[in-house]
Amino acid sequence: MRPSGRQPSDMRAVTLERNVAMKAEGSCLVAFGNTKVLCTASVETSVPGWLRGKGKGWVTAEYGMLPRATGSRTRREATAGKQSGRTQEIQRLIGRSLRAVVDLEALGEVQITCDCDVLEADGGTRTASITGAYVALVDAIKWMEERQLTRGKALIDSVAAISCGIYRGTPVLDLDYLEDVEAHTDANFVMTGAGKFVEIQGTAEGAPFDRSELDALMVLAEKGIGELSSMQKSVLGQ
Amino acid sequence: MRPSGRQPSDMRAVTLERNVAMKAEGSCLVAFGNTKVLCTASVETSVPGWLRGKGKGWVTAEYGMLPRATGSRTRREATAGKQSGRTQEIQRLIGRSLRAVVDLEALGEVQITCDCDVLEADGGTRTASITGAYVALVDAIKWMEERQLTRGKALIDSVAAISCGIYRGTPVLDLDYLEDVEAHTDANFVMTGAGKFVEIQGTAEGAPFDRSELDALMVLAEKGIGELSSMQKSVLGQ
Amino acid sequence: MRPSGRQPSDMRAVTLERNVAMKAEGSCLVAFGNTKVLCTASVETSVPGWLRGKGKGWVTAEYGMLPRATGSRTRREATAGKQSGRTQEIQRLIGRSLRAVVDLEALGEVQITCDCDVLEADGGTRTASITGAYVALVDAIKWMEERQLTRGKALIDSVAAISCGIYRGTPVLDLDYLEDVEAHTDANFVMTGAGKFVEIQGTAEGAPFDRSELDALMVLAEKGIGELSSMQKSVLGQ
Amino acid sequence: MRPSGRQPSDMRAVTLERNVAMKAEGSCLVAFGNTKVLCTASVETSVPGWLRGKGKGWVTAEYGMLPRATGSRTRREATAGKQSGRTQEIQRLIGRSLRAVVDLEALGEVQITCDCDVLEADGGTRTASITGAYVALVDAIKWMEERQLTRGKALIDSVAAISCGIYRGTPVLDLDYLEDVEAHTDANFVMTGAGKFVEIQGTAEGAPFDRSELDALMVLAEKGIGELSSMQKSVLGQ
Amino acid sequence: MRPSGRQPSDMRAVTLERNVAMKAEGSCLVAFGNTKVLCTASVETSVPGWLRGKGKGWVTAEYGMLPRATGSRTRREATAGKQSGRTQEIQRLIGRSLRAVVDLEALGEVQITCDCDVLEADGGTRTASITGAYVALVDAIKWMEERQLTRGKALIDSVAAISCGIYRGTPVLDLDYLEDVEAHTDANFVMTGAGKFVEIQGTAEGAPFDRSELDALMVLAEKGIGELSSMQKSVLGQ
Amino acid sequence: MRPSGRQPSDMRAVTLERNVAMKAEGSCLVAFGNTKVLCTASVETSVPGWLRGKGKGWVTAEYGMLPRATGSRTRREATAGKQSGRTQEIQRLIGRSLRAVVDLEALGEVQITCDCDVLEADGGTRTASITGAYVALVDAIKWMEERQLTRGKALIDSVAAISCGIYRGTPVLDLDYLEDVEAHTDANFVMTGAGKFVEIQGTAEGAPFDRSELDALMVLAEKGIGELSSMQKSVLGQ
Repeated sequence: MRPSGRQPSDMRAVTLERNVAMKAEGSCLVAFGNTKVLCTASVETSVPGWLRGKGKGWVTAEYGMLPRATGSRTRREATAGKQSGRTQEIQRLIGRSLRAVVDLEALGEVQITCDCDVLEADGGTRTASITGAYVALVDAIKWMEERQLTRGKALIDSVAAISCGIYRGTPVLDLDYLEDVEAHTDANFVMTGAGKFVEIQGTAEGAPFDRSELDALMVLAEKGIGELSSMQKSVLGQ
Repeated sequence: MRPSGRQPSDMRAVTLERNVAMKAEGSCLVAFGNTKVLCTASVETSVPGWLRGKGKGWVTAEYGMLPRATGSRTRREATAGKQSGRTQEIQRLIGRSLRAVVDLEALGEVQITCDCDVLEADGGTRTASITGAYVALVDAIKWMEERQLTRGKALIDSVAAISCGIYRGTPVLDLDYLEDVEAHTDANFVMTGAGKFVEIQGTAEGAPFDRSELDALMVLAEKGIGELSSMQKSVLGQ
Repeated sequence: MRPSGRQPSDMRAVTLERNVAMKAEGSCLVAFGNTKVLCTASVETSVPGWLRGKGKGWVTAEYGMLPRATGSRTRREATAGKQSGRTQEIQRLIGRSLRAVVDLEALGEVQITCDCDVLEADGGTRTASITGAYVALVDAIKWMEERQLTRGKALIDSVAAISCGIYRGTPVLDLDYLEDVEAHTDANFVMTGAGKFVEIQGTAEGAPFDRSELDALMVLAEKGIGELSSMQKSVLGQ
Repeated sequence: MRPSGRQPSDMRAVTLERNVAMKAEGSCLVAFGNTKVLCTASVETSVPGWLRGKGKGWVTAEYGMLPRATGSRTRREATAGKQSGRTQEIQRLIGRSLRAVVDLEALGEVQITCDCDVLEADGGTRTASITGAYVALVDAIKWMEERQLTRGKALIDSVAAISCGIYRGTPVLDLDYLEDVEAHTDANFVMTGAGKFVEIQGTAEGAPFDRSELDALMVLAEKGIGELSSMQKSVLGQ
Repeated sequence: MRPSGRQPSDMRAVTLERNVAMKAEGSCLVAFGNTKVLCTASVETSVPGWLRGKGKGWVTAEYGMLPRATGSRTRREATAGKQSGRTQEIQRLIGRSLRAVVDLEALGEVQITCDCDVLEADGGTRTASITGAYVALVDAIKWMEERQLTRGKALIDSVAAISCGIYRGTPVLDLDYLEDVEAHTDANFVMTGAGKFVEIQGTAEGAPFDRSELDALMVLAEKGIGELSSMQKSVLGQ
Repeated sequence: MRPSGRQPSDMRAVTLERNVAMKAEGSCLVAFGNTKVLCTASVETSVPGWLRGKGKGWVTAEYGMLPRATGSRTRREATAGKQSGRTQEIQRLIGRSLRAVVDLEALGEVQITCDCDVLEADGGTRTASITGAYVALVDAIKWMEERQLTRGKALIDSVAAISCGIYRGTPVLDLDYLEDVEAHTDANFVMTGAGKFVEIQGTAEGAPFDRSELDALMVLAEKGIGELSSMQKSVLGQ
């Protein structure tokens, strides 16, 4: 039934490859099927102005897409002179998701910027970004710990994200581009390794959805997040 | 327990005042307690480029805040030279919410722009904006119907929005600014008059939340949306 | 003769309503007939860079127009990415006019920003803005005096503004939109309560004007400013 | 009494040099003392969008200042990314002033852009710009007439501009920079060769001014404009 | 002598990998040692405005760098709101270099945009970009030929680029970052497979250079370009 | 053979006029035939942020073109909101060229900004700019020396620039606009008075060029630079 032949509760093949960027303190190349995102985590000594002198750190994210990550070429945002509303929305979501599992006081007065650059886009770029950026972030924090730059345990939990949607009447897990275009309801779930919610964003693209449909999506999401959390632990050698 | 003395399931006093802008095809001044938003709906004959010639219309929204709607003066976005990520995120949400209850083919090839300008901000500006913009939109569509500019019934349902959150451990309805700042979980619900979901956005500001907390917020939201939908019907004389 | 039925030397109904913005140190909703402007005065502790450390304060103004204050929707300047030349010209005029009646040394090293946001536009938005912003400014200075933040008497005089023009050959006071579009000469006068000029801007929109026409406009302006000054005094309880 | 030793009613040495820009249809290098402005008039076949197809032309102006026209280097507006409010105000004034003496229907559907670039600034750059741009404009219109591109007589009158001010209590003509900085009242007059007003802008920089002071400035302005108009006629060989 | 232990006339290990971007008509991942650039070539049916209707095509390039391609994080140009002067200079060079080997009339009225995005930067990103973009361009033109979209043979020759410099007194080929920082003279050569020059850019970073030094760099460049051209032919199966 | 009737190795008439800008510390109006550039050098006490506190100075350049320096009017960059890639490329070249002959430590912690504004453009604006800016720079450094603001001899050598190209098969010196448009190869040479190279930029506009053609251009360039260096010395009274 699904264009890819997957079962409704099947995720695409997911891979997480660490240490792909020579110069970053942490990095991860994440693939959700044909969606590929290069995530780097950069430790910088300056924090945003409003945090200065408060002894707390900050975790933030930026998101970009290579012009030909998409089926037809997308205009480069640096040429357009600004980031689109969609880009800003996504990078704010990634930043909030990562901050939910970091103790900013333990981090000390540094900023970690997670850059998520989409090399290939086939649906689910924001969920892949969150899942991969977490891995890059863990390595950046390890890098800090090895240099005794933190003030205790900065990581509280792990975090991952997955999309679900109602495709031709059936709730399915991890939409690819073909499904995303057609799905009547589209939801993104960001959850911790402990199984709690960090963020839920459900949107009726066509007809509004009801409580039972939302419940079905949640069940799928919990399954998917469980699998992603295991993969994160495994690749991080935990 | 709540700073305002409200019960957990109490909304603030809500008012919806129609026809407040002399020149707009539809308008509504909406108040959720001390939050006040002026909503106008403008009918324009041009649609976005990618819709041209397809016989369909479009509904979009823009959001702004007067500089001194807030406790300390906020920089004017026209001076800053761009809309913030937050502003873009909110206006995209308002636009999607309104489109969920409009038959764009019945609308014909016109664009209705709903401007939501916050005169006073005390929490819940996006939910008040959606609730008020719907009223302005209905009047703009009536204005079109009176001139026989639509191609049949363009309105499918009504739409309203409300926030909920977990404040000092208790799920509460319709957060004001003092509660919003302190709440550990904050969720916005956009629902139709028929009781279905158009959009859910739940965010853990502090600790992640679990399924039972989310369920409690949904119960509150359904109550609140029910009351808002009744008020919308009443003020529209339906 | 005038579209509104007014006599040549009649102003429109003018109202000045104080304390309309909960959070601002001073505020005034001013109406010149159907033109309505919300003016707020915000006291801020930082002054422009070039004034820093000189023991003097600053009064400045910003001007904006809600998109549907006008007959057809005007593009939002925050979306356009910049303020128009007209907007900048108007806000510079408002700022100069207010500074003319303030002793900046007595103010101390603070900045008062007067925001003038047009809710409805029917001609004369800049003159209404000046007249209303003065009332908001007075209340902001009173707020400072109550907290003993000034260094003596900061207000030197009052200030108000009115437009005049030559409409179908007759000099008339306080042009509304219909007159403004058609008037051959259009002049704005900013004057103090003591009857002196702060600013005169006369423009020949069609045929150039001569000295006697200018003299006739000045007589009207003096009458109008006199009435506005009385209203300002009255609403301020002076 | 004046820093330059001039009498109150003396203008600075004024020169108007035609045909200084090889490629422009009209050009004039104007000097008011040490203030020097290069004015070019360019005939272009496209008019602004809102005029298209109406059979009318347009005259507009742009104003700029070389970075080291001023005592200390001024930031280049192309680097800053936008024109300042002051620049926009001035170029709007120049454009209005020139349009006041042109019959836009006789011009036909073309646009003439007058660029006024200040090579040296010593006060009065906007009045020098108007006075010089008129000469450039006349030559551009002659260029069109020689090619029979106009539809009749496009020039209605001549136009020139001069500043006046109250310097140390005395009304003086044509302020230079030293006087401008100190003057309590500063007024710019744009007048036609026939002696009528196109624009008056009087501003109290310090204390407000009264009717008799304004009258004294007008007398000076009329004298100055008379002299400038004669020079324009003379240099144009009329 | 060189930090990498290379001989003066040694290039770094160069790899060219085709078809790395699923959606692009042509693509190549090029590595010059640790410098890695992802090049894609996108065929689009619209040409720049000034070429429209002339029956000719266009080849252009855009250049970007992922924020953490560099040792310390570089600000994202999309966030800064504009491309730097360096970026524009590089992308103009890439575009000119590619156009030198394309018959734009044979291409027909299409535009091919070559995006060069630097994943890792270790010196020589512009020369790697040109060398890799050529491979992507060839594949995009093949894609067109397979669909009979060209009007004859569009490729005239091959093109590649290499840097040379004077490092601690010795002319060396293919500078890496450590050498680039220290080199007194830095030159980029763009040459065709036939051994002719498309572009030479030599810059004295420290002391000016003389004719004999330039000659020595040219000899190195010819050697390097020869090797790069062979690799391009080989990977393209020519 | 050349449109101007010049011999292949003839430069256009070159003039260098010092002290043309009253307020700048150094200035030069340079003409290469009909190309005219006004160069000013401004001494400022602040250096770029990354140089602060290092006891070194900086020399930088900005380039602009008056809108009607060209045959048809060019859009003003201040209106466009940014400098073009071409402008940035040129001003970076001018800055690098000037820095090549300045000892930045001897300069002390000041910045000298050389503004090159093209009054008339007929080809070779960048080479004229470098040649003229050097003269302005020398005068600015003299101005500093007279005030004992330098720390020893800041000028190392002189610098000038000239273009060469292959026009209708013949190598020619100092291309004018008509030649530039048609030339198959275009090269700019920046050289010191001592005859060394600071920068070489050779571009094949049409067919690639070979080594012997490049050699022929170098011979011409050396001749031209020799003449320019003499003129610079002469006008500077050295």
